[in-house]
Amino acid sequence: MTKQGKVYLIGAGPGDIDYLSVKAYNLLKKAEVLIYDALVDAQLLSLVPTDCLNLDMGKRGGKPSTPQAEINNLLVQYANQGKLVIRLKSGDPFIFGRVSAEIEALKANSCEFEVVPGISSATAAPTFAGIPLTDPVMSRCFAVLTAHDPDVLDWEALSRLETLVILMGGKNFPEIIYRLKRHGKTLTTPIAIIRWAGTSEQKIWSGNLGNILEKIEGESLSPAVIVVGEVVGLRDYLTDSN
Amino acid sequence: MTKQGKVYLIGAGPGDIDYLSVKAYNLLKKAEVLIYDALVDAQLLSLVPTDCLNLDMGKRGGKPSTPQAEINNLLVQYANQGKLVIRLKSGDPFIFGRVSAEIEALKANSCEFEVVPGISSATAAPTFAGIPLTDPVMSRCFAVLTAHDPDVLDWEALSRLETLVILMGGKNFPEIIYRLKRHGKTLTTPIAIIRWAGTSEQKIWSGNLGNILEKIEGESLSPAVIVVGEVVGLRDYLTDSN
Repeated sequence: MTKQGKVYLIGAGPGDIDYLSVKAYNLLKKAEVLIYDALVDAQLLSLVPTDCLNLDMGKRGGKPSTPQAEINNLLVQYANQGKLVIRLKSGDPFIFGRVSAEIEALKANSCEFEVVPGISSATAAPTFAGIPLTDPVMSRCFAVLTAHDPDVLDWEALSRLETLVILMGGKNFPEIIYRLKRHGKTLTTPIAIIRWAGTSEQKIWSGNLGNILEKIEGESLSPAVIVVGEVVGLRDYLTDSN
Repeated sequence: MTKQGKVYLIGAGPGDIDYLSVKAYNLLKKAEVLIYDALVDAQLLSLVPTDCLNLDMGKRGGKPSTPQAEINNLLVQYANQGKLVIRLKSGDPFIFGRVSAEIEALKANSCEFEVVPGISSATAAPTFAGIPLTDPVMSRCFAVLTAHDPDVLDWEALSRLETLVILMGGKNFPEIIYRLKRHGKTLTTPIAIIRWAGTSEQKIWSGNLGNILEKIEGESLSPAVIVVGEVVGLRDYLTDSN
């Protein structure tokens, strides 16, 4: 009887090994095949055994990457060989992780799999910046969105919510500001941009919808998480100044 | 010179040790004082050293709990004694974790502190149920809310979003269904309820806004995470049937 392979689709969290889940950490330590995207932090690759096969799929905006069908085939192929396969995605696989096609391929080929949640940058980046996404008075709800295609979103409805977390919004940043103002967010609405959240390169800009474009002029905003809403103002009260 | 104390406000994630962050795990292993709420899973308490002082604050709907001012005082007192203090919250401290008052008390008393993010049940529960919160076509954004006071929320705006994740919605469940339908969600909108997500007691009900009340009749819906939107239908395609 051959060993049954299994594919773990794992959320790596914001990048640092510290923010991996215990389960993800233990699985990486015994991985036989590791299939990862360019966005995954390099230090995570050091956790796998030295004889683990590391395959870089190179997914990143604008850069050449492996076609999805080929990634699906690799997952199925190594699972069928009885391997412990890890498909590592940054953040959480089920939050803008685009893993559905991979899971459907695994199911179609009767391969065993499991999705292991991770800490999404949508929630981790605000925490690293000292911004709670909720507050009993200022923020009873928050929405998470990407803004690489602003036309598919209902900005009128979004602008009525107290707090917004916007991923992949660097390229369309001026457009985002324009739409929020047009749909009712005032110029004094607080906004923060957190670049390279949770890394030693982390940088934060904050201001309001009226002045933020001036503050970030000439800066690269990728990868960045944008937070819009009164909770941004809590930063001053909730970050350690020791 | 006395040792400098520090308070770590840690997100425990959905409950199981597997979903703790590596950082949270390592900190718990050397905690000197552990201050936790009733919602924290009991197995996490086993991680601290035997001589760690464990203090149960007992926060849970309807049950007696320690007044917030007293919790604040305990954190400050033990930090000032030079202790490594862990304030453990279920999920993520900055997502409905109500830690602002504690942080303000720590700052006011010049105590060192750090917030350690965790995996919120808002994102973990859907994953355990095989429901991705985003999808390139069906769900370009999602909102997270609690529904213990439905009157403070803009249901008209929320009903226009593709995906909603509702925490602490068990008590007001019929009211939530009523408001969503009233503000434009159709009767065929898929909905899932995940109770005790990620534990051996996990139970999932799914249906649509038209039939879900009938399906859950007589069931206790606490603690539960509710997901509303077309992504709920992806469950059938994305859960392992092996």
